[in-house]
Amino acid sequence: MQESRALRRQKLKMNMAEKEVEAIIITSPANRYYLSGFELHDPQCNESAGYLLITPDRDYLLTDPRYLEEGKEFFSDEDIFIYTRDKFKQIQGYLKKIGVVMLGFEPQWMNYEYYTALSQEFEMVPVKGLVEDLRFLKDARELELLRKSCSLNHKVFARIEEMLCPGLLEKDIAWEAEKLFREEGASELGFSTIVAAGERSALPHASPGSKVLEKGMPLLVDMGCRYQDYCSDQSRTFWVGPGEDVFFRQTRDLVRQAQDLVIEWIAPGKPISEAYKRVKTYFAEHGVDGYFTHSLGHGIGLETHEAPSLGPDTKGEFVPGMVVTVEPGLYYAGWGGVRWEYMVLITDNGVEIL
Amino acid sequence: MQESRALRRQKLKMNMAEKEVEAIIITSPANRYYLSGFELHDPQCNESAGYLLITPDRDYLLTDPRYLEEGKEFFSDEDIFIYTRDKFKQIQGYLKKIGVVMLGFEPQWMNYEYYTALSQEFEMVPVKGLVEDLRFLKDARELELLRKSCSLNHKVFARIEEMLCPGLLEKDIAWEAEKLFREEGASELGFSTIVAAGERSALPHASPGSKVLEKGMPLLVDMGCRYQDYCSDQSRTFWVGPGEDVFFRQTRDLVRQAQDLVIEWIAPGKPISEAYKRVKTYFAEHGVDGYFTHSLGHGIGLETHEAPSLGPDTKGEFVPGMVVTVEPGLYYAGWGGVRWEYMVLITDNGVEIL
Repeated sequence: MQESRALRRQKLKMNMAEKEVEAIIITSPANRYYLSGFELHDPQCNESAGYLLITPDRDYLLTDPRYLEEGKEFFSDEDIFIYTRDKFKQIQGYLKKIGVVMLGFEPQWMNYEYYTALSQEFEMVPVKGLVEDLRFLKDARELELLRKSCSLNHKVFARIEEMLCPGLLEKDIAWEAEKLFREEGASELGFSTIVAAGERSALPHASPGSKVLEKGMPLLVDMGCRYQDYCSDQSRTFWVGPGEDVFFRQTRDLVRQAQDLVIEWIAPGKPISEAYKRVKTYFAEHGVDGYFTHSLGHGIGLETHEAPSLGPDTKGEFVPGMVVTVEPGLYYAGWGGVRWEYMVLITDNGVEIL
Repeated sequence: MQESRALRRQKLKMNMAEKEVEAIIITSPANRYYLSGFELHDPQCNESAGYLLITPDRDYLLTDPRYLEEGKEFFSDEDIFIYTRDKFKQIQGYLKKIGVVMLGFEPQWMNYEYYTALSQEFEMVPVKGLVEDLRFLKDARELELLRKSCSLNHKVFARIEEMLCPGLLEKDIAWEAEKLFREEGASELGFSTIVAAGERSALPHASPGSKVLEKGMPLLVDMGCRYQDYCSDQSRTFWVGPGEDVFFRQTRDLVRQAQDLVIEWIAPGKPISEAYKRVKTYFAEHGVDGYFTHSLGHGIGLETHEAPSLGPDTKGEFVPGMVVTVEPGLYYAGWGGVRWEYMVLITDNGVEIL
C-alpha cells in the first residue's frame, strides 16, 4: 500500500513538533515530490520548480507561473502562491501575510543567497534530514517500484554482457544500455552510465569515451535507471576475454567475497558504520585496503544517492525497509578497477538482494 | 580560437582584484569546468565532484578520491587536495594551511551548511556572477560548438515534424527525438524534452506522458541537446492536421511576429530589459499580454539557462558574443499554448539566428 502524501506530511509535522519548528520551507526537489507529488525535478540545480511550506494546519506550494497548472493537481488554488520576478521579496511578503515568524529550512538545500534574503524577516532554524529520515524507510509501493527498477537493471546487464566484444567503444556500450532501459519502460537514467575500459576502470566515475575494448582488459559498468520515479544502481566488472587474467580473477574474487561477507552480516539492529569497517578489515587482511578508495554504498530511492551512506562514521542502525547499495571495489591506478554492486533491502531478519 | 582555461582564470583574477577579493572558492559545476576543464557535472545537485580555489598566484582543485585521477589531467599533484570524510573540516584545515584568510564564494551556489562551516574560520565574501560575467561572452570555439549543437536541433526538429501523426504518444515523440540527437553525435540532452499535446501545451514545462496525438490539436515541443558540452534549446508548436485551426494560426502568427520584431530590434548597446517590454507591449496591443506567462529568453552555453535572462528587470546591454534564446509564447489554460524559440548570437551590428 502506498502511504498518502498527506500521511507523509503528518509524520513530518510530528517530527517538526518534537523539534519545536513551527513551519518549514522545503527546497529539496526530491523531498518536495515525496511530500506532495509536485515535480521530482528542478530544471537546473540553480533553478527551482518551487517550494513547499509546511505548517501545522496547512500546506502551501510556492512556484512560478510555468508550474501553476501542474501545481493545481496537488494543491487547491488558495494554497498556491505564484512568484514572478523579485522572488525572494515576494516570498517574504507571502510568508509574513500567512503569519510565519520562525521558519525551519534544509541547510543542505538552501543556498546562501536565499537564506540571507529570508533571514531578514524570519527566525531561521536549520533542520537537517527531517524528510530524509522519513524517506529512508520505503513503503510497500516504493519497494515494488525499486524491485521493478532493479529488475530492469538485471535485464539490461544480461543483454550488455552478451554484447561485449573487442572493438566496441565505451560510449557505444553506454548508449546501447540507455536504449535498452528506455525501451523496457524506464523513464530516464538515474545517473550518467559509467563504462570504463582497461586502466580507466580505476577511475570510479569515468565518463564513457572513445576508448576501444580490446582483448585482455577489465571493463567496469555502473548504471541505473529510473522506473516510475524510483532509481536502480548496479555495477559489474567484466574481463574482455577470451580467458581471464589471474590478477583480475583474484581481485574480483576478493571484492565479491567482501560483498558476500557484509551482505550476510547486515541485519536490523546492526550499526551501519560497522559495514564499512568489516569490508575494510577484510581487505586489510589481504593487504589491499589501500585500494578500497570508493565508498561502500548508499541508500537509494527517489534519488540514486540518499540516506543512509554506508560510511565508517554513519550514525544509526539498519532498519527493516531500508534499501541500500553494497558496492565494494578495489582500484589500481594504471591497471584498472573492479567494483561489484547489489541493491539490498533490509528485511525483518536480514537482507534480500534485489 | 579557444581561450585557454588559464587565460579565463587570469581574467577572473583581474575581476577579483578589482573587488579586492583575495581568494575565491568555486562551487558551481559549470564555472568549475569553464575555468579548469575538470568535470562539467556533479553527480547530484547535493553532491559535488569538487571545488576550485583560485588565488592570485596559484589555483587548486579540492575533490574526493573518486576524482583524483581525473583531477590530475588538469592540476599538478601538489595543487590537488583530497578530502575524505569530514569534508568541511578537512577543507578548512587545507585552506588555513595555504594561508587563506578572506574567502570569496558564490552565494547562489553555496548551501547554508557549507557556508556556516567555512565562516567559522574565514572572512566570507559573497561575490555573485564573477565567472558568469566571463561566460556570457562566447569565444570562437564556443560559438562553433553552439552552432553545431543548434544545427543538430534543427535537424532533429525537421525529422520530428515529418513523423508527426495522430496516434503517437507524447513520450514516444520525446524518445524518438532523444535517439536522433544521440545518433547524430549529441552526448546527452541539455534538459528533459517537453512534448505537450492539446491543452497540455498550455503547461510551459509539461513532462511528456501518455497523451495521444489527435487530429485538431496543438503540439508544443521544446528540446535541446548537448554537443561537446554546449547546449542548444529550441521550441516549435505544430498543429496536428489536416488543416489548421484559425485561432491556432492567429496565435502562432502573433507569437512569431513578436519574435521577429524583437530579433530585428536586438543589437549591441540596446538595454536587455527592453526586449521583454517590446514583446509585452506588442502582445498588449493585441489584447493578449495576459497570456504571455513564460519568460522571453535566456543566455545559453555550458548550461541551458545562463546569464543573461531576457527579463524586464535585467540590467545591462546586449554585447557582441552573447548567445540568447528568444522564445515568446502565449498560453491559454484549457486550450493550449504556442511557443516559438530561436537561439540568436549578438553580432557587431545586430543578431544572427543560429
